[in-house]
Amino acid sequence: METEKKRVSMAVIKRLPKYYRYLSDLESRENEKISSQSLGNMMGLTASQIRQDLNAFGAYGQQGYGYNVSELKEAIGEILGLSEEYNCVIIGAGNLGHAIANYEGFRQKGIHVIAMFDNDDKKIGRKIGGHPVMGIEVLEDFIAEKAVDICVLAIPRENAQEVVNRIVDKGIRGILNFVPYDLHVPDNVKVEDVNITDSLFTLTHLISDYNQSH
Amino acid sequence: METEKKRVSMAVIKRLPKYYRYLSDLESRENEKISSQSLGNMMGLTASQIRQDLNAFGAYGQQGYGYNVSELKEAIGEILGLSEEYNCVIIGAGNLGHAIANYEGFRQKGIHVIAMFDNDDKKIGRKIGGHPVMGIEVLEDFIAEKAVDICVLAIPRENAQEVVNRIVDKGIRGILNFVPYDLHVPDNVKVEDVNITDSLFTLTHLISDYNQSH
Repeated sequence: METEKKRVSMAVIKRLPKYYRYLSDLESRENEKISSQSLGNMMGLTASQIRQDLNAFGAYGQQGYGYNVSELKEAIGEILGLSEEYNCVIIGAGNLGHAIANYEGFRQKGIHVIAMFDNDDKKIGRKIGGHPVMGIEVLEDFIAEKAVDICVLAIPRENAQEVVNRIVDKGIRGILNFVPYDLHVPDNVKVEDVNITDSLFTLTHLISDYNQSH
Repeated sequence: METEKKRVSMAVIKRLPKYYRYLSDLESRENEKISSQSLGNMMGLTASQIRQDLNAFGAYGQQGYGYNVSELKEAIGEILGLSEEYNCVIIGAGNLGHAIANYEGFRQKGIHVIAMFDNDDKKIGRKIGGHPVMGIEVLEDFIAEKAVDICVLAIPRENAQEVVNRIVDKGIRGILNFVPYDLHVPDNVKVEDVNITDSLFTLTHLISDYNQSH
């Protein structure tokens, strides 16, 4: 698909993973094409919202045909950076690290989890989800040597900033942060937070008597 | 703190958990008051953004004094529904369920995790993070009997909608959904998604060569 190389707003970017998910499903069920109307029905959006989002990066459906599923998925994947290769490590081999190591989203082509790190001697040397667990003291050297791009942070809050300080100048580009703490990083390192507590509190607000009565 | 009972926009609501987190920290370090300027410095916001957010629900700082930390935390907690009580179960006792059972955010006053559920005979009858693991076949009865408010969903995608269908009419009010699948629920049940894959893809976008070159 010929997409124009436009700058896409962050609001649209934030919705693209959802498109990617639905298009991957459609592709795996061998659907070749999809109309904005059908895609909207599936995703709980209007056809016009769909067209507006996709037009934002120059993906225009064909009148009377709709979108080619594989081409659209690939175009979105490219914007999401999924046509590139990333070396990834998981810092913290506790339950959350375990869960992430086995999480299906991390089995994307292009995302290579190459090691996990922990400070617990009982875990070091073991394999979790096929990944070797290494001692946290070799983290910096490993990151520099293996050109690690992404660090997934799943350690206790008390140690989070200190560990991050040790790795930010070793060539990493991004941190997926599961720690409920706002990390301080230099501009060339991007952080995306997965804040489970924040989501829980949004839910308690939505179901609260407070919300029902206002 | 006298707060006016205004309707607060969802955009502000989404930022309140972060305020709550910072105010909890300040309180635990025994700070009694905070200016919008200092709070802004800590949170990476301007003083005027802070004042605007807090004014939205009628929390006005006092000139030359700022905000009373405990009162402000309590006022925000009330909007977030944290002054109420919730019975909560975790469905899925895999690594992710394990991680959630031990997650600090779930140790809030008012949020009571009372059981976990799984279909694996090896897990049933055990305790995880102090919570008994029960068989998934008794889930509906348990929810109705114990007046469960919140279900945390941490099971494979294939079973997610079917399990949700079984519980939505048993009195639950909200689902914290870790499954990368958009659940279908009736209007009286709220869903908050924690989509780890979506966060990962946002991160890969941010660090991608695609993003750097546009």
